[in-house]
Amino acid sequence: MIDLYTWGTPNGHKAAIMLEEVGADYRVKPVDISKDEQFAPDFLRISPNNKIPAIVDHDADGGPLSVFESGAILVYLADKFGQLLPASGPGRYKALEWLFWQVGGLGPMLGQLAFFANRAPDKLPPAISRFTDESIRLLGVMDKRLGEAAFLAGDDYSVADIACYHWALVSREGLRDALADMPDRPNLNRWLDAVGARPAVQKGMKIPN
Amino acid sequence: MIDLYTWGTPNGHKAAIMLEEVGADYRVKPVDISKDEQFAPDFLRISPNNKIPAIVDHDADGGPLSVFESGAILVYLADKFGQLLPASGPGRYKALEWLFWQVGGLGPMLGQLAFFANRAPDKLPPAISRFTDESIRLLGVMDKRLGEAAFLAGDDYSVADIACYHWALVSREGLRDALADMPDRPNLNRWLDAVGARPAVQKGMKIPN
Repeated sequence: MIDLYTWGTPNGHKAAIMLEEVGADYRVKPVDISKDEQFAPDFLRISPNNKIPAIVDHDADGGPLSVFESGAILVYLADKFGQLLPASGPGRYKALEWLFWQVGGLGPMLGQLAFFANRAPDKLPPAISRFTDESIRLLGVMDKRLGEAAFLAGDDYSVADIACYHWALVSREGLRDALADMPDRPNLNRWLDAVGARPAVQKGMKIPN
Repeated sequence: MIDLYTWGTPNGHKAAIMLEEVGADYRVKPVDISKDEQFAPDFLRISPNNKIPAIVDHDADGGPLSVFESGAILVYLADKFGQLLPASGPGRYKALEWLFWQVGGLGPMLGQLAFFANRAPDKLPPAISRFTDESIRLLGVMDKRLGEAAFLAGDDYSVADIACYHWALVSREGLRDALADMPDRPNLNRWLDAVGARPAVQKGMKIPN
C-alpha cells in the first residue's frame, strides 16, 4: 500500500496520474494547502520542504520508504513498477531530460507567471513580461519537440509526459489570458488532447476530489 | 570520450564537477553564453532548450548519445560510472529527492533572486522580497537537513551535493548582500567547506577557464 499525500495542483497531479497509470494500490491523504496543512509536523517528517506531493510506500524493500519531490516520486514509481521509464539505455535518458526540463523550467516559470499575472497584490509589468516571455519560449520548445516525436521522450508515452501535462494544460486554462500573445502551438495541442484522453490521466486529475 | 558543452555557471559546474569526480575521459567545448553561442544551430541539436550544460557520450551503448539538462546529466553519469548515486534501494531515492529539490527549487529561486536583486534594470521591491524570502526558506531547509546528516542524501556524498554546491555557494558570494537578513546557517556552512575542499569540486569549478 502506498500513501499519497497530495492536493489538486499540477505537481500533485503528477503523482496521482502516475499511480493511476501503473495500477498501484494506493490511498489518498489530502493535504489542504489552503489551510496550511503542509506545515503540520507529521507531514514535515516525510516532506522536509513542506510541499506536496509526497508518498510513503509501506511495501518498499527494507521497510516503509517516504519520497518527496514530484520528479523523484515519478522515477521511484517507474522503477518500482517497471513502467513509463525504460530501465536503461537511451530511452531512459531521453525521458529524464524532459522530466528535469519540466521540473527546472516549465514548472517554475509557469508557476511564477501564475503568481505575478494572476495572484500578486501589486501588478509589476516587468516581472509579468519576464515570465510571460519565458513561458512562451518554453512552450515553444515543447511544441517543437512534439513536432518531431509523438511524445516528449520519443515514440512512447513516459513520465516526462505525465510531468508536463497539467503544467502545459494551464496554458489554455488558468494562464490563457496571460499567454494571449503566444503563437499557435499545434503540436502541443495535439499532445494535450492525446494525453488528456487517457483514462489514468482523467482519474488522476480529479485527485483529491 | 565525452564532450562537455558548458560555461562557468552553477548549472555548468554541476556537470564539470561530476565528470571530475567519476574520473571520466572528457573534453570541454565552451559555449560562451555572453556571445549567445547557445543559440547556434549545432548546439540546438543536442540542447533543444538552448541551455548549457549538455554532453555527448561518444562511447554510449548503441552509438553517440547526447544528454541535456544538468540533472539528467548527473543521473546519466552516475549510472554509467556506478558512482555517487546508489543503483537501487532507499539511498538512490534519498539522493534523487534532493537532486530534484535543487533543480525545481533552489536553482530557479536563487536564479530569479540574482536577476531581480542584481541584474534587473528596474528595481521591483515586491519581486526582490518574494525571491529573497523563498531563497532564505530554501537555504533553511537545506541547513536543517545538513544538521541531521553529513550530506543531503545521508552519510554519503552524492549527485545531490554536486547539484546544490555552486547554488548554495552563491549565498555567500554573489547573493551575499541580497541575503544579508538570512539567519546563520552553520550546517550549510560546514557542508560548503567540506564539499568545496574536494579536489574534483575545485577542478570542476574552474571549467571552462
